[in-house]
Amino acid sequence: MTDERNNDILPVKISGVTGPVTGWLDGHTILLGLFADPIRHSVSPTMHNNAFAKLGLNGAYLCFEIGPDRIGDAVSALRTLDMRGANVSMPNKQAIIPYLDKLDPAAEICGAVNTVVNEHGLLTGYTTDGTGWLRSLKEDGQDVKGKVMTLAGAGGAAIPIAVAAAMGGAREIRIFNIHDRNWEPAKEKVAAINEATSCVCSLNPMEDKEAFKQSIAESAIYCDATGVGMPPLDDMSLVEDPSWLHEDMVVSDTVYEPRETKLMRIARQAGVKHVYNGLGMVVGQGAEAFKLWTGQEMPVEYIKEIVAKA
Amino acid sequence: MTDERNNDILPVKISGVTGPVTGWLDGHTILLGLFADPIRHSVSPTMHNNAFAKLGLNGAYLCFEIGPDRIGDAVSALRTLDMRGANVSMPNKQAIIPYLDKLDPAAEICGAVNTVVNEHGLLTGYTTDGTGWLRSLKEDGQDVKGKVMTLAGAGGAAIPIAVAAAMGGAREIRIFNIHDRNWEPAKEKVAAINEATSCVCSLNPMEDKEAFKQSIAESAIYCDATGVGMPPLDDMSLVEDPSWLHEDMVVSDTVYEPRETKLMRIARQAGVKHVYNGLGMVVGQGAEAFKLWTGQEMPVEYIKEIVAKA
Repeated sequence: MTDERNNDILPVKISGVTGPVTGWLDGHTILLGLFADPIRHSVSPTMHNNAFAKLGLNGAYLCFEIGPDRIGDAVSALRTLDMRGANVSMPNKQAIIPYLDKLDPAAEICGAVNTVVNEHGLLTGYTTDGTGWLRSLKEDGQDVKGKVMTLAGAGGAAIPIAVAAAMGGAREIRIFNIHDRNWEPAKEKVAAINEATSCVCSLNPMEDKEAFKQSIAESAIYCDATGVGMPPLDDMSLVEDPSWLHEDMVVSDTVYEPRETKLMRIARQAGVKHVYNGLGMVVGQGAEAFKLWTGQEMPVEYIKEIVAKA
Repeated sequence: MTDERNNDILPVKISGVTGPVTGWLDGHTILLGLFADPIRHSVSPTMHNNAFAKLGLNGAYLCFEIGPDRIGDAVSALRTLDMRGANVSMPNKQAIIPYLDKLDPAAEICGAVNTVVNEHGLLTGYTTDGTGWLRSLKEDGQDVKGKVMTLAGAGGAAIPIAVAAAMGGAREIRIFNIHDRNWEPAKEKVAAINEATSCVCSLNPMEDKEAFKQSIAESAIYCDATGVGMPPLDDMSLVEDPSWLHEDMVVSDTVYEPRETKLMRIARQAGVKHVYNGLGMVVGQGAEAFKLWTGQEMPVEYIKEIVAKA
């Protein structure tokens, strides 16, 4: 009957609240949440709750420590408590699918969901990781339309980016990955992208470094979605040298801890102007989910400042 | 699959938040809630969330529209989401009991629960309505110890008050009620009070107005827990006339809408100094629940001001 999870209400130093809170967190407040494990250090609640407060929307977003063994129960809880929706993160992005009523086409191709919307008990699964990444590019005046992109990685971060880029009009996406456990599933996803869009998508062995280097040289966009660059791999980069890159391209790393990765330093040495870490993607996926739940635009610049400090 | 409940996140005018909220409503925030129907106009979230913000505690309290057909699902949700606990109101106070693991002795006698505490998955049901009422008397320097009390009503508000007063040392409690659907259940509860405490508790027919009037004359405390005095019965009082009361007694009405009931006006005409509406009981039951969940005292005076304005 008992478990080891801790639900003590702990003392904290609260900033930003100066007097009695009225209008918000009252009887009309609608709950949203994140189902993941680990979860406590997520920036998503800070992002969404500050967007609610800034825009004057009566929602509250909390984190729930849920693994795949309890994701079905969590979806039942979402239905029972009339939650407007939820985000889903590791390790539940695939495991949640059987409990939903419908999938958005991009989520269907990805075989993964990061956002659930509850419309009067009908639950639809979306993936906003890729559209969030694309949004962050567009906010800097960049786009994938008609472009060739080289994408390192074929896992949970890479596939949604490939799907969003293909749906967003990329001409060609060359995915490079080693022959790890992601290889076979990625083959199917690449086939589905080619089936569903006019983009030419290919899966290529990262073991062939020359082909990888050549592909980057031919690309307008290079994105690393492998997690290389994050501790313990923080002094590593798959791009070995500034000569692999060219100034007029976009270089995007999905890592945001550290804020500047080795790839980003190499890109700056190569004179690349449009270099991004993963923070824009984090806020972008949140902004896309926020819009699905509320119909409104998240105040992205305001939220980015808060998240950067968090 | 779909339902008619509305979970739209609505625009509101928020006060009390002046900048980015940090420390609170982040990945560590623990959820609490109220399961009832109707629910949207409850003051409980305003009360608890302002107490959390004031004391710097990382909890959030929301309302969930739940009737008895879904109270079992709501308890499952509470367990799945590791909620610290919940309040339960009409119409779930009895219906929730089969889904809990343990009952506090007062809740056992009442056969009703208004507060659930989740200790690592072990759920205990409490009733804080009566202890909340008693707390509000004590805050004004009054007590039930050794006293005779006349209590009008034998329903959901009256029984917890009788149990708390008996456990709090009242010498005698004379419950008056008409022969409605509460009569037979109340007989059992009166027997349980006499069994469990040294208080002499009796159930008397309200139809005998003379006995009722006589009992009030002999009492140090008169409490009306019937709901008479609330619209549409707002120009009614079971005490017909100031001559039924005496100056040195306590007169307590569980109604708080309107803030001054007809009974309270009659009591003031009779020169009674200690006259209370039900607001103290509302805040009192909240303060008792708050202490069970957090181990801390709710800042009652601060919260009363906020609730009085809400």
